[in-house]
Amino acid sequence: MTIDAVLTELAPVLGDRISRSKPDLAAHGGSETHFPSAPPDAVAFPETTDEVAIIVKTCNTHGVPVIAYGAGTALEGHTSAVKGGMTIDMVRMNRMLAVHAGDMDAVVQPGLTREALNAELRATGLFFSVDPGANATVGGMAATRASGTTTVRYGTMRDNVLALEVVLADGRVIRTGTRARKSSAGYDLTGLMLGSEGTLGIITELTVKLHGQPEAVSAGLCAFEAMSDAVDAVVAVIQTGLPMARIEFLDAEAVAAVNAYSGAKVAETPHLFVEFHGTTAGVAEDAARFREIVEDFGAQSIETATRTEDRTALWTMRHHAYWACLAARKGARGLVTDVCVPISNLAEAVEETREDIAASIIPGPILGHVGDGNFHAILLVDPSQPAELEVAKSLAARMSERALRLGGTVTGEHGIGMGKLAYMEAEHGDAWDVMGAIKTALDPNNILNPGKMVRQPG
Amino acid sequence: MTIDAVLTELAPVLGDRISRSKPDLAAHGGSETHFPSAPPDAVAFPETTDEVAIIVKTCNTHGVPVIAYGAGTALEGHTSAVKGGMTIDMVRMNRMLAVHAGDMDAVVQPGLTREALNAELRATGLFFSVDPGANATVGGMAATRASGTTTVRYGTMRDNVLALEVVLADGRVIRTGTRARKSSAGYDLTGLMLGSEGTLGIITELTVKLHGQPEAVSAGLCAFEAMSDAVDAVVAVIQTGLPMARIEFLDAEAVAAVNAYSGAKVAETPHLFVEFHGTTAGVAEDAARFREIVEDFGAQSIETATRTEDRTALWTMRHHAYWACLAARKGARGLVTDVCVPISNLAEAVEETREDIAASIIPGPILGHVGDGNFHAILLVDPSQPAELEVAKSLAARMSERALRLGGTVTGEHGIGMGKLAYMEAEHGDAWDVMGAIKTALDPNNILNPGKMVRQPG
Repeated sequence: MTIDAVLTELAPVLGDRISRSKPDLAAHGGSETHFPSAPPDAVAFPETTDEVAIIVKTCNTHGVPVIAYGAGTALEGHTSAVKGGMTIDMVRMNRMLAVHAGDMDAVVQPGLTREALNAELRATGLFFSVDPGANATVGGMAATRASGTTTVRYGTMRDNVLALEVVLADGRVIRTGTRARKSSAGYDLTGLMLGSEGTLGIITELTVKLHGQPEAVSAGLCAFEAMSDAVDAVVAVIQTGLPMARIEFLDAEAVAAVNAYSGAKVAETPHLFVEFHGTTAGVAEDAARFREIVEDFGAQSIETATRTEDRTALWTMRHHAYWACLAARKGARGLVTDVCVPISNLAEAVEETREDIAASIIPGPILGHVGDGNFHAILLVDPSQPAELEVAKSLAARMSERALRLGGTVTGEHGIGMGKLAYMEAEHGDAWDVMGAIKTALDPNNILNPGKMVRQPG
Repeated sequence: MTIDAVLTELAPVLGDRISRSKPDLAAHGGSETHFPSAPPDAVAFPETTDEVAIIVKTCNTHGVPVIAYGAGTALEGHTSAVKGGMTIDMVRMNRMLAVHAGDMDAVVQPGLTREALNAELRATGLFFSVDPGANATVGGMAATRASGTTTVRYGTMRDNVLALEVVLADGRVIRTGTRARKSSAGYDLTGLMLGSEGTLGIITELTVKLHGQPEAVSAGLCAFEAMSDAVDAVVAVIQTGLPMARIEFLDAEAVAAVNAYSGAKVAETPHLFVEFHGTTAGVAEDAARFREIVEDFGAQSIETATRTEDRTALWTMRHHAYWACLAARKGARGLVTDVCVPISNLAEAVEETREDIAASIIPGPILGHVGDGNFHAILLVDPSQPAELEVAKSLAARMSERALRLGGTVTGEHGIGMGKLAYMEAEHGDAWDVMGAIKTALDPNNILNPGKMVRQPG
């Protein structure tokens, strides 16, 4: 078998850092996803770029698939080894290699988690802003073009990665981008690799942008009678240029789940959670300005939290919303959806989705990053009832179709993986074939995360 | 001849909107560049995407090069028809197709200039932020991944284009991206096309981000004894998160040129020009905070301009700096350089460049977008002295080498064109071959702006 040939060649290089043990294979067969496990034939734990290059080159020679693996937090089955092969677990490549405080950037290995990165940065007065909720690795976040609650101010991974080191399918190591803040020097290969989900190369080093920790932070929440009022209010706020650091939406059902989970007593209507970063006077002015605007759209029960403990309580509610939603139905599993539309169509997209879920047999609280037009329904499925998973999949399918009809995308931040492959044709048309042409040019033997991203043969 | 075959086929489609007149060919042989003219064999003036598609498809069939042409403001010879062929002038595709105020985006044709776009937007309270100085077309700015004075706050073209319509080499029309603010759905083809300088496809439509016109604007300038103090001050300001809308640097020589040109009486030492956008109270606080920080770095003669006429006078000085520099040497032509480095290396890069120019036989004032680490020397050459152009080219070459040595890029915003092709290998190494593989995959007959961007045969 070809995997045996690969293991024979790699044994002198990796020693016991290559495994075929059942627990290791099982642990790398999936991630936080509803897809069935698809374990690889072996798992490697490299420590250097050179080791990754040797692994990839050897696998390429023998036509063995290679799948990069971070923290396993992918929601769409990105790391499932659907064609078998070698999973490269980046857990040992988890160091911060350099911080350049003057340039506000850091050079990190792909296996470093975002929380560990921020812990290392604490003394510098700087932070890494991208916050998808899960404690994903920086490499995984780059491969998925992740984003999260702070995107409205600080951007997605696309906006926060300056440069990459990438191992190509044939084992060559390239560098894309530089530590300069911008460049017009040729094709944007950094951007091309971001979001390519390990199908064009294996990321072995990243230079990420950092931001200054704000002197002052002000957070708050406010209630609306209707979702559409909340969205209209956010549009108005954005147009004034008021720099919101976070602006999150929870529907009435999500608020109810949060109340039940955390013992909070928030009115069970649609809510916005907002945060401002700046100087003490600046955030106070921002918060006042925000209040003034949202009141025109019927906002009620506006509360502001400037003390750290109050803010923490507020954002803990938001960050625990996923778990709160899961807890809202005992024993349930969540199928987490993810669509993004032009913000002017957000109210319609959420309303239709809410009605569709309400007419179904399962619950599905909705929350989202309203400033980006991105929202999630947490579809709550009883695992003992297979029919419910089918209902959830149908609801998710209609969400994707709705997003496309409303000028949006089938995934705002979770990526394609297994879950959205069926929508690539509908979203991209002939552009999907351009992706295929690029894939073939860079990975002619189709060893990099095969079965994903591009049109599949047959 | 193949061009004749193309013209015969296209005549029924384009009629008199295809030209072989000498003035038309001459007018499209170059741009605002020091490179010698290289006119095409014909110039087409399409009015629709379908017409562009037919032109490109026909040229592809006959192996005739195709070069897209906007306002002709490229500085590095991007549009020179070095292999002859068909230039597609976008001047008739210059309409704004839609404004979505709620989503803060606009859909435009590639031949629309940024000033015309902003004139059309005036009543909406929104504006298109990217400002490279020249009144370039939006299509040309996208193809070059342009930026300019407002990048530090609003970003480059990479940050301000949401979606594209592109004609591929074989005449297929694709759409990349959507009007949603973000997406994780596959390879970022929008980003790949931005900065590809017409070598991967012809842009026929763009969806660009807009920003809210700020309620209040505050501008100012301040003097420093040394460049390095100015740069250190900017680094400190950025780290506080103070949202500068513009932060520009002029060296003593550039200030002297501006004084002579505009009759201003600014002290002839290194200067920073700064601008803040926000609420009235916000910009006042920002300006005060800025003053506080820069004074720690020895800033003197700090002046603030909040009245529109004072601000206009200040930015007119800055925007006319190029012409002021040219006027500083009677009859001179300018060779405009463009490098970008990590900001912590900016002072060193500028100082070394200043000394190198001072030791040469030609003058070269320096100015730049200090918040991005991007600067330009305007090398002033007497066109009657060919030796001076050689000196300027040597100085420019050493600037590029210096930028690479200091971890930067050979072009921050002007692009590759003819002028930086020789540095692609040095900047990108094997990644340049990846660009070549992508080019070959998307344009196998090499008809799209041939002779540019990728490694040339032979």
